[in-house]
Amino acid sequence: MSVYVHPQGICESTSVGDGTKVWAFAHVLPSARLGNDCNVCDHVFIENDVVIGDRVTIKCGVQVWDGITLEDDVFVGPNVTFANDPFPRSKRYPETFSRTRVCEGASIGANATILPGVTIGRRAMIGAGAVVVRSVPANAIVVGNPARITGYADHTREDRMPSIPATRLATPEAGVVDTAVRGVTLHRLPLVRDMRGDLSVGEFERSVPFRALRYFIVFNVPSREVRGEHAHRRCHQFLVCVKGSVSVVADDGRKRCEILLDSPEHGIHLPPLTWGIQYKYSDDAVLMVFASEYYDAEEYIRDYDEFLRLVG
Amino acid sequence: MSVYVHPQGICESTSVGDGTKVWAFAHVLPSARLGNDCNVCDHVFIENDVVIGDRVTIKCGVQVWDGITLEDDVFVGPNVTFANDPFPRSKRYPETFSRTRVCEGASIGANATILPGVTIGRRAMIGAGAVVVRSVPANAIVVGNPARITGYADHTREDRMPSIPATRLATPEAGVVDTAVRGVTLHRLPLVRDMRGDLSVGEFERSVPFRALRYFIVFNVPSREVRGEHAHRRCHQFLVCVKGSVSVVADDGRKRCEILLDSPEHGIHLPPLTWGIQYKYSDDAVLMVFASEYYDAEEYIRDYDEFLRLVG
Amino acid sequence: MSVYVHPQGICESTSVGDGTKVWAFAHVLPSARLGNDCNVCDHVFIENDVVIGDRVTIKCGVQVWDGITLEDDVFVGPNVTFANDPFPRSKRYPETFSRTRVCEGASIGANATILPGVTIGRRAMIGAGAVVVRSVPANAIVVGNPARITGYADHTREDRMPSIPATRLATPEAGVVDTAVRGVTLHRLPLVRDMRGDLSVGEFERSVPFRALRYFIVFNVPSREVRGEHAHRRCHQFLVCVKGSVSVVADDGRKRCEILLDSPEHGIHLPPLTWGIQYKYSDDAVLMVFASEYYDAEEYIRDYDEFLRLVG
Amino acid sequence: MSVYVHPQGICESTSVGDGTKVWAFAHVLPSARLGNDCNVCDHVFIENDVVIGDRVTIKCGVQVWDGITLEDDVFVGPNVTFANDPFPRSKRYPETFSRTRVCEGASIGANATILPGVTIGRRAMIGAGAVVVRSVPANAIVVGNPARITGYADHTREDRMPSIPATRLATPEAGVVDTAVRGVTLHRLPLVRDMRGDLSVGEFERSVPFRALRYFIVFNVPSREVRGEHAHRRCHQFLVCVKGSVSVVADDGRKRCEILLDSPEHGIHLPPLTWGIQYKYSDDAVLMVFASEYYDAEEYIRDYDEFLRLVG
Amino acid sequence: MSVYVHPQGICESTSVGDGTKVWAFAHVLPSARLGNDCNVCDHVFIENDVVIGDRVTIKCGVQVWDGITLEDDVFVGPNVTFANDPFPRSKRYPETFSRTRVCEGASIGANATILPGVTIGRRAMIGAGAVVVRSVPANAIVVGNPARITGYADHTREDRMPSIPATRLATPEAGVVDTAVRGVTLHRLPLVRDMRGDLSVGEFERSVPFRALRYFIVFNVPSREVRGEHAHRRCHQFLVCVKGSVSVVADDGRKRCEILLDSPEHGIHLPPLTWGIQYKYSDDAVLMVFASEYYDAEEYIRDYDEFLRLVG
Amino acid sequence: MSVYVHPQGICESTSVGDGTKVWAFAHVLPSARLGNDCNVCDHVFIENDVVIGDRVTIKCGVQVWDGITLEDDVFVGPNVTFANDPFPRSKRYPETFSRTRVCEGASIGANATILPGVTIGRRAMIGAGAVVVRSVPANAIVVGNPARITGYADHTREDRMPSIPATRLATPEAGVVDTAVRGVTLHRLPLVRDMRGDLSVGEFERSVPFRALRYFIVFNVPSREVRGEHAHRRCHQFLVCVKGSVSVVADDGRKRCEILLDSPEHGIHLPPLTWGIQYKYSDDAVLMVFASEYYDAEEYIRDYDEFLRLVG
Repeated sequence: MSVYVHPQGICESTSVGDGTKVWAFAHVLPSARLGNDCNVCDHVFIENDVVIGDRVTIKCGVQVWDGITLEDDVFVGPNVTFANDPFPRSKRYPETFSRTRVCEGASIGANATILPGVTIGRRAMIGAGAVVVRSVPANAIVVGNPARITGYADHTREDRMPSIPATRLATPEAGVVDTAVRGVTLHRLPLVRDMRGDLSVGEFERSVPFRALRYFIVFNVPSREVRGEHAHRRCHQFLVCVKGSVSVVADDGRKRCEILLDSPEHGIHLPPLTWGIQYKYSDDAVLMVFASEYYDAEEYIRDYDEFLRLVG
Repeated sequence: MSVYVHPQGICESTSVGDGTKVWAFAHVLPSARLGNDCNVCDHVFIENDVVIGDRVTIKCGVQVWDGITLEDDVFVGPNVTFANDPFPRSKRYPETFSRTRVCEGASIGANATILPGVTIGRRAMIGAGAVVVRSVPANAIVVGNPARITGYADHTREDRMPSIPATRLATPEAGVVDTAVRGVTLHRLPLVRDMRGDLSVGEFERSVPFRALRYFIVFNVPSREVRGEHAHRRCHQFLVCVKGSVSVVADDGRKRCEILLDSPEHGIHLPPLTWGIQYKYSDDAVLMVFASEYYDAEEYIRDYDEFLRLVG
Repeated sequence: MSVYVHPQGICESTSVGDGTKVWAFAHVLPSARLGNDCNVCDHVFIENDVVIGDRVTIKCGVQVWDGITLEDDVFVGPNVTFANDPFPRSKRYPETFSRTRVCEGASIGANATILPGVTIGRRAMIGAGAVVVRSVPANAIVVGNPARITGYADHTREDRMPSIPATRLATPEAGVVDTAVRGVTLHRLPLVRDMRGDLSVGEFERSVPFRALRYFIVFNVPSREVRGEHAHRRCHQFLVCVKGSVSVVADDGRKRCEILLDSPEHGIHLPPLTWGIQYKYSDDAVLMVFASEYYDAEEYIRDYDEFLRLVG
Repeated sequence: MSVYVHPQGICESTSVGDGTKVWAFAHVLPSARLGNDCNVCDHVFIENDVVIGDRVTIKCGVQVWDGITLEDDVFVGPNVTFANDPFPRSKRYPETFSRTRVCEGASIGANATILPGVTIGRRAMIGAGAVVVRSVPANAIVVGNPARITGYADHTREDRMPSIPATRLATPEAGVVDTAVRGVTLHRLPLVRDMRGDLSVGEFERSVPFRALRYFIVFNVPSREVRGEHAHRRCHQFLVCVKGSVSVVADDGRKRCEILLDSPEHGIHLPPLTWGIQYKYSDDAVLMVFASEYYDAEEYIRDYDEFLRLVG
Repeated sequence: MSVYVHPQGICESTSVGDGTKVWAFAHVLPSARLGNDCNVCDHVFIENDVVIGDRVTIKCGVQVWDGITLEDDVFVGPNVTFANDPFPRSKRYPETFSRTRVCEGASIGANATILPGVTIGRRAMIGAGAVVVRSVPANAIVVGNPARITGYADHTREDRMPSIPATRLATPEAGVVDTAVRGVTLHRLPLVRDMRGDLSVGEFERSVPFRALRYFIVFNVPSREVRGEHAHRRCHQFLVCVKGSVSVVADDGRKRCEILLDSPEHGIHLPPLTWGIQYKYSDDAVLMVFASEYYDAEEYIRDYDEFLRLVG
Repeated sequence: MSVYVHPQGICESTSVGDGTKVWAFAHVLPSARLGNDCNVCDHVFIENDVVIGDRVTIKCGVQVWDGITLEDDVFVGPNVTFANDPFPRSKRYPETFSRTRVCEGASIGANATILPGVTIGRRAMIGAGAVVVRSVPANAIVVGNPARITGYADHTREDRMPSIPATRLATPEAGVVDTAVRGVTLHRLPLVRDMRGDLSVGEFERSVPFRALRYFIVFNVPSREVRGEHAHRRCHQFLVCVKGSVSVVADDGRKRCEILLDSPEHGIHLPPLTWGIQYKYSDDAVLMVFASEYYDAEEYIRDYDEFLRLVG
């Protein structure tokens, strides 16, 4: 078993892995490097300064320009279009082309456009027709022009992960409910509503399961924004959505869940070594977070791959 | 007269109709079936599980994947991109690919993206660059990402059908005005505005031309939504837009008109065997409908082709 | 038993009923007519063209000007101030003074101001400090400057009648619920909510308990306005609040109830000879009314006293 | 020196203190009790079940009904009107009249209306023409119909206390600023604003000067409402207005200040034995409060007189 | 003909004009000065430092305190209440009492409250129950608590002057329309509305009838506010309401008119020696004014009496 | 040096300039005309009625249809899709195809869609994935579906020109500040804010540096709209943004600047022969413009190329 090139295809590279196929009217330039078992469909064009992993599918009509890396198991849909110059002018070339990285297992839907210099995270899913103007975190699902995150892919199945309202997950009786994610719990908090306004109360080391050394309050977040996308080494966090609503994704490296905080009656406890994301902020959302540690930049894990290694 | 294949084109199928042309760098796989007088332009790719009718135009750079049917007289613009897997991952294949059907006479504009599994109705018009995420009814014109219905094509001319405000169509004197569509009439209704609010009044078998057995009220309709898209066998309907505005399309199978109801002073009478559509709801729209029959699912015609057969 | 006049009081009228008392520093002019058992407290002034019924209380500091009638059992709180010239200028007198009528059993709270020419209905309650700029219907409770109706007094007890939300009154199981008022019923109606908007449906002679000959739709009602305040001789009515909310008062002459329609899932049936009031319209309220009769001015009873006589 | 009664005045009570004057056309009933040095002006009427302290001024045209107490140094403006029956009907008397108490040093402006059963706190100021429908806390200034708190009187001068914006009080350099009130300090807090929203941060025992055992969040407060009006025996509080604005009054029994929190960049520290009030909430205000103690009802001082005794 | 005092009235002043009557239970202190033909009704109290003109009517229950002046032809309705201490405390007296002036021909409606220190302009009309917290300009009609200007009295008749919409006054044909007021004209201006926004255009010495040396733009005006209330000696003005609406009152000393500018299609020309007022600004109103002169404080006439003398 | 055609490319035209390259699987039809030094990449298709200038780059997967002109130095990104029939139906051809012109130096980003009949101005920049539905002015940067102008390219560097807030550019001291553009100045104007609203004032030949013969006011501009895009031969203009904000681009043919007018305190003076653009209108923006000349259509320069010729 070795490389197959269609009689009407052109493969000028010799750095192509076993089992890879190059189909009709496709054109691979000499310095491109391709892994094993790739599928390069009709009318694809692959330039020189390109690295492509194993088991990558590139559907018809795609060009892979200098500066682009496609890691293992990436799927690139038909007519997906990359760019590598953010402000192109004919016959003027940037000193270096922007580099674009599509991480392991990510998929790019049909006819999507990928702007120069972005990174598309591990197992992210780019919707058909999306125009991706900035980097996409791991597992994120993005659609539209410009592309916005509308959900996250699940670890274990090929589908969008559902967002479960906290009001559905919590039972009126139970004070604390476990989630599918290791150590992540949903807590019921007192809420007093009367003519004089609403009052949400918590007590540390009682309803909030640790002593807080720090709080922060997040508000005025544009609904398209995503916050978090990191884990902590030692710090516990407790999140309460005081007004409006926000979706919280928690991930222990094996399982994920997404909970819609839509009432100040609920708080979520994220223990250390939980990857956390907050998004889908409503316009009026006010998210209060308590932390068990003072701020310490060293204590943050901001790279998802590193997180996966740590939680093993 | 028979099939023409450009010297640089590849046509592996033998099931291709008379007069069809396959141009340079195009590639038709062995099991594809194409009708007569089709035009398969440069850089087109046609997979195996594909059925294409007569007089279909496929402009450059298009791929037609397994599971796609293009009926007679369909136009597919340049670089139009179909997809057949809603959540693609490299080297993982769904058990069956989603099936996509583009009905007779429909056109797909340049560089549009068609998501898996949709049906594009008869003579629908997909705007250039549109990203079609759900099925499109007959004659509808859609644009944008995601694509929304912004109008309907006329039966008789190659253009968007205008939306005529009821306030322009109705004359202050006349109580009832005929429209271009058989049996569809526009009725003037009393409206009383004073300091204590607005009052819109109708009397059955007088200003409303039948006895009502049923009413329904439609409200909180997102402006992108379309309602109706069906006809009745026996039921008369009378529509009044109490607040806000809504566009009503009426179609007798030969002629169509689109009327913008923008005042509670007007009602539209749709007799049986009229295809009716309501869309472009304003945010505050409240549409009241009276029906001459109790609800009976058998009495609805929901398939436009069946409707056309019935009205002959 | 006869008239008592305090030694420091002045009663120049001889037309004063038995048991009436005129207290210190009060002054009754010669032509005033007072009934039995009235109480005219300190510092009250009563002009000539005045008629006062039986058992009327006039607390300190009140003036009763020419043109004012206080019927039996009226209560006038301290420092209540009447006026009888809508645009007074010193030494210029209108040809005739405006006439003011306070009907049987009505009460006027402390320091209220009553503008010229209004009628205050039977058993109405004017709140302390209110400035009454237009007539007040029977049983209404008004407060503020200018005074607005904020509720209605009950027939049977000395208190504000509560407004019961239809959603509390109706049970999910029951289709039809009786109210405290003779013949008035609350009906559950189908409501369909989906992505394409909300749909409220009714069927005549089924969920709506009569055949409709007429409908009317009321909307854009300022929240301070009150509609209705009449009964019908023969006509049935069925009210559905399609959007927003509205409070409906129903009265059979013996009992009253007030129901807050706050969902299109509920309709109220008002049979003939029911006094009906609608008020507390929310800004976005749309009230739909079906009637069993065509419009006939003769069929309306607009005077509450006449209504009470008819229902006997 | 003893009681003076104008020749045209009537004083039937013998329980009237030295130096008190009763002027022309005034009328005091036999069981009323009045202190020393009061001034009862023309056209005043005082019923029997009334207790009036020393140095009270009652201007012309006022009635003081059964059930009303006016403590020392109270001022009652001209034509002020009290009521003692919340739902009066002629000749129907409640079993007991509502009791009204006007505390030491309070003033009631001209022509104000006081509804039955309220308490008007020590040194409160009721604006001319106000209609007071519920109790008024100590020092509060209320105006309008219905009356709302618009400010507080100062301890030391005859005027409305100004509301000082925190942004004016705090200097960019200083982290902590003292106020006029013992132990109450204004703290500058980090605020991070960027494209992804606003972030306000605090650290306990650092920027927040104590360890928190409890937090509460107050929001959706109608702008007319007042919260607080209490002190704590042992508990420290730290207030941050996360969104919108709120005015905070702090009082050590000798001095008061009012600070407008209008940015999440500022926090106020209220030590134990500080009387605190929050009012003038903007519509979108979210007030976060940290407390150094768990909730303990015993720890609250809710009576201002008791507070004054405790702080000596 | 001389002063009449009712047997139960007390008039201690000797400075009372011919034809003045003092009625029962009224009390006039020794130093008060009253003009001719006044009417002092029952239960009125008049203090010492008071000056009252001719033909003044004071209805029952009114007190006129030290510091108050009522000019000729003033009408004071029943139970009207003045105050002369802005922050009263019992037994503490201000060094000087605030002075209140009610100008010639003004009327104060029943039970109104007048705060200390205000001036009520010539022929102003205070509505019944109003609480007047600041000075009222000539001819203004005010109502409510606090009192707001809701209209102006006409010169020539006893009524509120109507506000005429410019769109009704102007005819589509005419470029310039005269008003009832000398020299004041309404001008039609070009307005271009298209997809790209609205454009309102004027040309100086053409559609605007003079050369402008100055412009000013007024916006963000609270709807309760009144601007203008002055005339110019030499300056022409031209007013265009660019957005929203505003009412403009123009007055030549003999006639007044009030025009509602509700479209940028109209401009009003106010020549010199025209008294101008703008009020009833809608929330979004933007009023543009062109002036024929540079700013010169000397050129403004801000006193209405002086204006009347000048236009003589 | 002459034309290079890849062995797998097809170039049927003989009208191709020196140095132009036609790469693999590209196809140029016989009548197309191409200039010198063009680059026609893989999978490009060029029809017959096409004119292409010098130094044009056409990246992979692009089709250039009949009716399209690409001027010198145009860049067409990969998979860019043109269309030349606004309402395509299979096998029905318009009498003439719409003509599309891409002017000198313009760039079209990856996968953009260009609708029929538009002109893309000199040095305009079409963002990747944009769907261009109407003509784009010179230097404009457009993105999105449909494409909107979001900025302008600078003359002198390859980047988006920044929008400088006037409040940053102006110093509190200086009355007038120069900009980078010849003769264009920023002027500080008096603004008076008080309780009665805001007042912005200007004086002609003083704070406004010329005598105005004309004004116009622009408002209700949708935020996506662009106004101006012209220069004047003799007319001075002075722009003040009375409410909201608007960005003003000024260009003397050599340099450009973009200033964000976000306060009525600033005015911009545009002398004759300045190319001016206004865009990014906030929803509430009101822009006032004074002109030194009456309207004269001859005086406008609406073609940017002509403007460049005039300013040399």
